[in-house]
Amino acid sequence: MIKIIATMSVKAENSEDFKAIAKELVAKSAAEEGNISYSLNVSQNDPSCFAIVEFWKDQAAIDFHNATEHFTTLLPKLAELCDGEVGIEQFDTIEF
Amino acid sequence: MIKIIATMSVKAENSEDFKAIAKELVAKSAAEEGNISYSLNVSQNDPSCFAIVEFWKDQAAIDFHNATEHFTTLLPKLAELCDGEVGIEQFDTIEF
Repeated sequence: MIKIIATMSVKAENSEDFKAIAKELVAKSAAEEGNISYSLNVSQNDPSCFAIVEFWKDQAAIDFHNATEHFTTLLPKLAELCDGEVGIEQFDTIEF
Repeated sequence: MIKIIATMSVKAENSEDFKAIAKELVAKSAAEEGNISYSLNVSQNDPSCFAIVEFWKDQAAIDFHNATEHFTTLLPKLAELCDGEVGIEQFDTIEF
């Protein structure tokens, strides 16, 4: 399994627009065959700090996702509402 | 659902010991009734960067977890093998 954690800071005035766009991205991404989990999350410590937490079967699933219409059109819209860069870290799950 | 993302940097020479201890923590934590997902993950960009990604039903499940013997004994051992602080962020999942 591969996990992607995308963290972003969203100004308070953009928060509702951000969540409305993210709702569509979450629904369409979670429906993809290669996806295991896909969710939008808000920090309990800082309401401007959001994290999209994604579990994918493998890299092919991620490559497919990154080419989808919903990803290519919605992520830039989300990024526009962010304060600074979107931090994206990709992890390999250690299977014990 | 509540998600916890714990990130930590582990020196290369400590990596195997770290994974051996984490293996026990992952197994026992994932077996808890209130846990949904619990995994150890390593960054694809930086092999010294690890993330424990945890999905919990609610705060009560987290409180129970934090009082378990495996958590209270194993987390300090993991922290000793880390380079600097363990970063812990707790998120509320946005249910659309």
